[in-house]
Amino acid sequence: MQREKLLHGGDYNPEQWLDRPDILAQDVVMMKQAHVNVVTLGVFSWSLLEPREGEYHLDWLADIIHNLYSNGIFTILATPSAARPAWMAQKYPEVRRVRSDRTRELFRRRQNYCYTSPLYREKVRAIDEQLARRFGEDPAVILWHISNEMGGDCHCPLCQAEFRRWLQRRYGSLGALNKAWNARFWSHDYTDWEQIESPAPQGEDAVQGLLLDWKRFVSSRHIDFFKFERDCVRALAPKARFTANLMYRFHDIDYHDLARELDVVSWDNYPTWHKATETVEQTALDTAMMHDLFYSLKGKPFLMMESSPSFTNWQPVTKQKKPGMAMLSALQAVAHGSDSVCYFQWRASRGAEEKFHGSVVGHDGRSDTRIFRETSQVGAALEELACAAGRQRPRQAALVHDWPNLWAMEGSSGPRNCGMGYWKELACHYNALARAGITVDLIGQDADLTGYGLVVVPMLYLLREDFAAKLCDFARAGGTVVVSQWTGVVDESDLCRLGDTPYGLTELLGLRRAEIDGLYDGETRRCQPVENAPLPLPATQASVLCEVAVLDEASPATPLLLYGEDYFADAPAAAVHPYGQGRAYYLASRFTPDFYQAFYNALTEEAGLEAAAPVPLPDGVLATRREGLLFVQNCNPAPVQALGVELPAYGTAVWQTNAGELRRML
Amino acid sequence: MQREKLLHGGDYNPEQWLDRPDILAQDVVMMKQAHVNVVTLGVFSWSLLEPREGEYHLDWLADIIHNLYSNGIFTILATPSAARPAWMAQKYPEVRRVRSDRTRELFRRRQNYCYTSPLYREKVRAIDEQLARRFGEDPAVILWHISNEMGGDCHCPLCQAEFRRWLQRRYGSLGALNKAWNARFWSHDYTDWEQIESPAPQGEDAVQGLLLDWKRFVSSRHIDFFKFERDCVRALAPKARFTANLMYRFHDIDYHDLARELDVVSWDNYPTWHKATETVEQTALDTAMMHDLFYSLKGKPFLMMESSPSFTNWQPVTKQKKPGMAMLSALQAVAHGSDSVCYFQWRASRGAEEKFHGSVVGHDGRSDTRIFRETSQVGAALEELACAAGRQRPRQAALVHDWPNLWAMEGSSGPRNCGMGYWKELACHYNALARAGITVDLIGQDADLTGYGLVVVPMLYLLREDFAAKLCDFARAGGTVVVSQWTGVVDESDLCRLGDTPYGLTELLGLRRAEIDGLYDGETRRCQPVENAPLPLPATQASVLCEVAVLDEASPATPLLLYGEDYFADAPAAAVHPYGQGRAYYLASRFTPDFYQAFYNALTEEAGLEAAAPVPLPDGVLATRREGLLFVQNCNPAPVQALGVELPAYGTAVWQTNAGELRRML
Amino acid sequence: MQREKLLHGGDYNPEQWLDRPDILAQDVVMMKQAHVNVVTLGVFSWSLLEPREGEYHLDWLADIIHNLYSNGIFTILATPSAARPAWMAQKYPEVRRVRSDRTRELFRRRQNYCYTSPLYREKVRAIDEQLARRFGEDPAVILWHISNEMGGDCHCPLCQAEFRRWLQRRYGSLGALNKAWNARFWSHDYTDWEQIESPAPQGEDAVQGLLLDWKRFVSSRHIDFFKFERDCVRALAPKARFTANLMYRFHDIDYHDLARELDVVSWDNYPTWHKATETVEQTALDTAMMHDLFYSLKGKPFLMMESSPSFTNWQPVTKQKKPGMAMLSALQAVAHGSDSVCYFQWRASRGAEEKFHGSVVGHDGRSDTRIFRETSQVGAALEELACAAGRQRPRQAALVHDWPNLWAMEGSSGPRNCGMGYWKELACHYNALARAGITVDLIGQDADLTGYGLVVVPMLYLLREDFAAKLCDFARAGGTVVVSQWTGVVDESDLCRLGDTPYGLTELLGLRRAEIDGLYDGETRRCQPVENAPLPLPATQASVLCEVAVLDEASPATPLLLYGEDYFADAPAAAVHPYGQGRAYYLASRFTPDFYQAFYNALTEEAGLEAAAPVPLPDGVLATRREGLLFVQNCNPAPVQALGVELPAYGTAVWQTNAGELRRML
Repeated sequence: MQREKLLHGGDYNPEQWLDRPDILAQDVVMMKQAHVNVVTLGVFSWSLLEPREGEYHLDWLADIIHNLYSNGIFTILATPSAARPAWMAQKYPEVRRVRSDRTRELFRRRQNYCYTSPLYREKVRAIDEQLARRFGEDPAVILWHISNEMGGDCHCPLCQAEFRRWLQRRYGSLGALNKAWNARFWSHDYTDWEQIESPAPQGEDAVQGLLLDWKRFVSSRHIDFFKFERDCVRALAPKARFTANLMYRFHDIDYHDLARELDVVSWDNYPTWHKATETVEQTALDTAMMHDLFYSLKGKPFLMMESSPSFTNWQPVTKQKKPGMAMLSALQAVAHGSDSVCYFQWRASRGAEEKFHGSVVGHDGRSDTRIFRETSQVGAALEELACAAGRQRPRQAALVHDWPNLWAMEGSSGPRNCGMGYWKELACHYNALARAGITVDLIGQDADLTGYGLVVVPMLYLLREDFAAKLCDFARAGGTVVVSQWTGVVDESDLCRLGDTPYGLTELLGLRRAEIDGLYDGETRRCQPVENAPLPLPATQASVLCEVAVLDEASPATPLLLYGEDYFADAPAAAVHPYGQGRAYYLASRFTPDFYQAFYNALTEEAGLEAAAPVPLPDGVLATRREGLLFVQNCNPAPVQALGVELPAYGTAVWQTNAGELRRML
Repeated sequence: MQREKLLHGGDYNPEQWLDRPDILAQDVVMMKQAHVNVVTLGVFSWSLLEPREGEYHLDWLADIIHNLYSNGIFTILATPSAARPAWMAQKYPEVRRVRSDRTRELFRRRQNYCYTSPLYREKVRAIDEQLARRFGEDPAVILWHISNEMGGDCHCPLCQAEFRRWLQRRYGSLGALNKAWNARFWSHDYTDWEQIESPAPQGEDAVQGLLLDWKRFVSSRHIDFFKFERDCVRALAPKARFTANLMYRFHDIDYHDLARELDVVSWDNYPTWHKATETVEQTALDTAMMHDLFYSLKGKPFLMMESSPSFTNWQPVTKQKKPGMAMLSALQAVAHGSDSVCYFQWRASRGAEEKFHGSVVGHDGRSDTRIFRETSQVGAALEELACAAGRQRPRQAALVHDWPNLWAMEGSSGPRNCGMGYWKELACHYNALARAGITVDLIGQDADLTGYGLVVVPMLYLLREDFAAKLCDFARAGGTVVVSQWTGVVDESDLCRLGDTPYGLTELLGLRRAEIDGLYDGETRRCQPVENAPLPLPATQASVLCEVAVLDEASPATPLLLYGEDYFADAPAAAVHPYGQGRAYYLASRFTPDFYQAFYNALTEEAGLEAAAPVPLPDGVLATRREGLLFVQNCNPAPVQALGVELPAYGTAVWQTNAGELRRML
Repeated sequence: MQREKLLHGGDYNPEQWLDRPDILAQDVVMMKQAHVNVVTLGVFSWSLLEPREGEYHLDWLADIIHNLYSNGIFTILATPSAARPAWMAQKYPEVRRVRSDRTRELFRRRQNYCYTSPLYREKVRAIDEQLARRFGEDPAVILWHISNEMGGDCHCPLCQAEFRRWLQRRYGSLGALNKAWNARFWSHDYTDWEQIESPAPQGEDAVQGLLLDWKRFVSSRHIDFFKFERDCVRALAPKARFTANLMYRFHDIDYHDLARELDVVSWDNYPTWHKATETVEQTALDTAMMHDLFYSLKGKPFLMMESSPSFTNWQPVTKQKKPGMAMLSALQAVAHGSDSVCYFQWRASRGAEEKFHGSVVGHDGRSDTRIFRETSQVGAALEELACAAGRQRPRQAALVHDWPNLWAMEGSSGPRNCGMGYWKELACHYNALARAGITVDLIGQDADLTGYGLVVVPMLYLLREDFAAKLCDFARAGGTVVVSQWTGVVDESDLCRLGDTPYGLTELLGLRRAEIDGLYDGETRRCQPVENAPLPLPATQASVLCEVAVLDEASPATPLLLYGEDYFADAPAAAVHPYGQGRAYYLASRFTPDFYQAFYNALTEEAGLEAAAPVPLPDGVLATRREGLLFVQNCNPAPVQALGVELPAYGTAVWQTNAGELRRML
């Protein structure tokens, strides 16, 4: 892949327009107008590539690729496995997924295949090999894109058998499995592997170890399928590089595991800008956290593979990006580590599910539209910022986010079935750090903590023993750790830790959890700062869950904030405990945004983490760094002054930074 | 059917009381007290008419019919096909419907038959022929009522095969079908007709052309079944006349198509009077729009086949019609073109689903109840108004309402999945016109526009090319056309029009749609009238969807109203464009009720449409015309003065009109 | 069972800890610390008792039982039928339930067996006999606990056949069944028993007699299964005594029928204390009504078999019992007639569905927790109150609550499908009586009314003819009867009564129901007291449903309250009618709490019913009696003065009462 420039382009579906050569010709002209230098082809082309079993038609695709290439436009080539043709669904029922209620799907939509089916793998191998033979060495093809937005699960007999084999490998014996799942509860001891089935509405849904392992298994199946496809292509195209397009707050796959198999991470970014219930800055922070997650997966630049130039068709209300927002969201991706701004889609489909999804070119085919004009401006800006490509980001703070933790928490019943607010908890910490201009990585429990100054551990319910030890080592060596409520509760089998909790961290924190009390939505409990505390904090309100901690007798933490009411009044709501060269903070509940801002402003100063911008920025203005570059973005719907320049509504300025000096680039 | 009087009566179920001759005898006495002159018999009598396969018992029915006839009461005779006996469901599974999830129903409820099953048709033919032979020439039977409230759909293998045959007839080739459905999207090209199945939760639900064609197919099946039954009877009773009872805002059948097969339209009218969230006038307007639709289907008087004398049992809250409401709703039907006031039901059932549905005679069997008394008063009033029977209504304004448009819009994803508010849009226009005393027809795209002064085109998303041309011709010849947002988007296959839109109307309107932006529920955008505009309009608020239009360069429309905020500030929110001898209005969004009132008051004056009442009426008082008759109804819960008379709460006055002179009849 | 003391203890699951003898040893030590004198064993032990078909392991259980016994702790021994092992579900599909949609369940959760399956009964008999042989004479085992929280239903072919046999016994002929179900409605006459199937989403759900009979049948199946198990044990342990643990507002079983088979009633009590939407007093009253129901089932002391010492894991929000609440709720049970305070559970499970359910000992295994301390305090208090064991309660007022009535009402459509508020109606009457210090029994229509001064009949929609007669007799003999709206509507087949209603009570009440009008949620109608009425009542608001009654001409009731608005203004909203030596009150709607308080304060005085406390108590303080004992409980979160003592927040005081003298015990 090219490193000398930022990519601009997106999904292109010429197979829908092959009977309209005039439109295909116009596409090339307009792409050049819009500064497009890359397209993604082939995502949903299987029915045309292999219209009848074993009959392959690749010439049309070669023509498109080469015509674009001769016009300076590269191709990211997708394998078509996300949507197989109707003839295959008809002839081979086993390729169709079975739902958790054990209904086999009919031919439908996409992401609809059994990833275990040997027959399906054989068919995918055949088409992928066709593509690899034809385009594996083609200079026009700069990246291979395996399948599309992988997810979902299959409960067919083949998957049931595979699940049992997976469990046998994991546990060795039924005894170990029964122990790990605490299967004796409600008399569920399994005495034959065949007794185990995937979760089902009419079957098991209360053995939480089973729920968790099923999610692990499904994730591993997707990754296995990815590897299978990648290796089919790689065998014939050894120099090919591979990605898969990931998704927002995605649930079904442990992306930490998947990322190890990718050459480059990419993702599809569809925020709901201009929501009625939040500011553009809030939406921007939510999006930023995702960009940061995708950067962190491999610790290097990623691609924004899809985004809308304008609007989507699947949100409750179609909102146009207002003037300037296309630029703001494009440059936000680059600021956070993307080497591309790509769209779904170049040209709108005439019919079917996504005919009203935003596109660079609409049904009217015009180039004098606002959207086309703003897209072209984005393209021009990316050319000016070409030097950003490939640049790294500094290591400052890490926020722990882990799939098994997420899965285990959602599989549990209690302490708050109306919502634990896991992602909201993450955002409390992330937003305050991002607003303070700190670069945040989102890491899993396998991560190396070297280089970070601060590690934040929000709701790490399933805390691994090795990671608890790593956190202690990190603090001992001078790092700062922040631990929130509902951390260190269960082991990797979702079995409650016996003994004091947060398990593995009580010595680090100088306290233990005694109780946890749930609050109803809207309920709060007053909290007051301790006078003369080592860290001055504002009064605030606790919500959602209130942990009641008991200080360690031998080496107690120092309370910073106390609950001010209810039966747990005067228990610590926040505390700090020195540990080796570093220290650990404990937060017993969820507080108000201003609390987190004050808390992290103080902490990052204490930890010596440098803010992105040299001076404070106005409200709603966010600063982000890549090696040698500073991006400042105005999320307000009105102009502001920042770093001596006027930023228009939704405007962005970029500076080159060199030994503290700023030189404006954009 | 008799034309010399209005019909008064309703559904009568003597089969539930055959062991109570005392009650059957009392029924006749009380019917006469209540001025009943017609009953509907046989709707759900199959289990008694054919208690065992091939064993027919019609004598009891003949006895009832003739006893009523000898007491001056006619019969509308229903075929029993809406509810087949248990023995048939048990013996012949194919007569039971299969649901979209491919589950075959057990014996259940009613409207539960497969309309495709040859076996079911054979059984229906047999019983219908029995009835036709026995009652086909009977003077007591004045109308045949085929089945009951037809609707729903069946997904059985017989229907799947029939659907494929229907598609083959429609498209000729799979190539044409794939094109019409844009099936290449997500690689869905069909290569064998057998690959096509009806929409299913576990199957296809994203190929929108398939969704639309399935609805067309289901509608055509119902109509085919109606014709089958009608023709069975007609073959043996050549002079028989036929109806089917239609329903409020009904979805499953294109009533424009069905109406062509009916001799007389009838419908079942169950408004929720006295709702907590709307006034009686609002409910009355909503009901009036339906009456007008059913009148318009054939452009001639219809029957109100069912209504409740008091309350229903299936709404969230059972509300009694307050004193006077029975009269108001009965005479409203007549005012809008009904030649009958009929009830479900004469006498309440003792048990099962509808035992708490309102009836003229309740479980107490009393005639000294409020409901019996008010029903009798309605009967007496209908006798006084006998001359209304058969009278036509004037042609003034037409409002376009079309089933394929409705189906296509609901099958689409975007621009507002939380609700397009199609029926609310219709009501915005209808209510303002009805309050202005204009007679409104609800027409489809096959309609002849001759004779109308005004045609309103609200959200005609699926606008046929021929109808667009008809609208242009209509304006060219001097008519006034009003076009709302989200009109002219797709063709009959739900494929987006390529080129400028509203497709086929840009020349008429002098503008094109550039963008459409969705608003959240409760969100509004300020709109201001253009100074010195040719039509003075009030300031208002736009909501739901805001189209952004670009004026035609050669012949631009004249803006009347401008958006006052957001990025589309100053774009036209309403505009007018002269066209030939007429003109076209464009409304870019949904506005407040007072806006529509001002707009249509001005428009109808401009178009020279005469109001029903010679002078303005108080708020909440509605005026309606039939040839030579003027009905004025007070929807307020308090008395008002109107046209020189005092109308009590919910009161109605009727005048004969002759060359501008009014003579009070009631 | 011991009568000389109150039981304290709860569910104990040592089978989950057999590999941790240290924990089992610690359990005994801690139980003694906590004043535990009883545990429930074996509830979910089947997979350990019979790990492979026919291979029984009871030694571990014997060891536990005897070790506890030697430490002074008795055992309540449960049969394990509520959760059968995986091997059985795998080998014998017939033991698994079939859902109403006709899907057979996979192995899942608990309460998952077909109660009809002969195979399942054979397996249950075998394990129960093992237990009975081993422990049937064991002095450590003081009570047998059959299965666990029986409920749900099964629609398998075996159950369908059994249902048809049950119907044949009930009706004798299809003719009688068709008549009882009014099956001719919608032509549903059954002509073969095989045509009848249980209700199903894809089958019948509108024949309301079928719905009602299915509920009766399911209830009878559960009771039959209970009797089967009980008799299996009793055959080998003739002196054994039996219970089953019942549940809050339980729907599936007619507990009046079940109670006849029990030696002692027990129930599982899980209020949501500290709800955001109600006061602790309101929750306490709701709980008190249940305690009173369970006392009334046999008219003698019951056991509280389960409760949480702290919190549950299945409510929307986990709320800790605040300090003192454990004591308040424990002593409330005793005050209302419980001879035990038992918990689910002694020690928290490590994994699976209920790992976060509250327990006396948590995952940390500590005894220095607040919960352990408060539990121990409860244990100590129960020892002080040992003399309460076995004491009766006075007979004062009866409130009619009947399962067939509940089932029939919920199976009906209308007059208020958005909620009849049946339990709210009961609470209106109950709360006012309980606050007035009156002891209330909750009785069915089989009850003997002897000894009561007042019988309240709220929403007795399905009123049996014999019970109507009993009410008349009761009033005639000097009793006071209160009848609410929507009483006496249908017979036992859910067929509407023909003739005047409330059926059987019109003479008693001196009026008949003419109409019933529904109000929307939040809608109210003003009501005013009649001047100089025999019973002074406050002005109030009617809601939910407003009956319009017509006074009897011969012997009219005397109105006490009149509707003040709407078309039924001036109709009686409340009335009284003397009858024999007694009188009957009629309430036409649902009123405000202060109305019920005034109404029942006046009524109980008139009826000479003595309040529990000799003087009025502060708000939020409730007084309850058992023979010779007075319990006064402060439901307020702050201290109050009552009967001359200070009660802390959530505090309880107990007095011995002797001829009007009070001696404080606690």
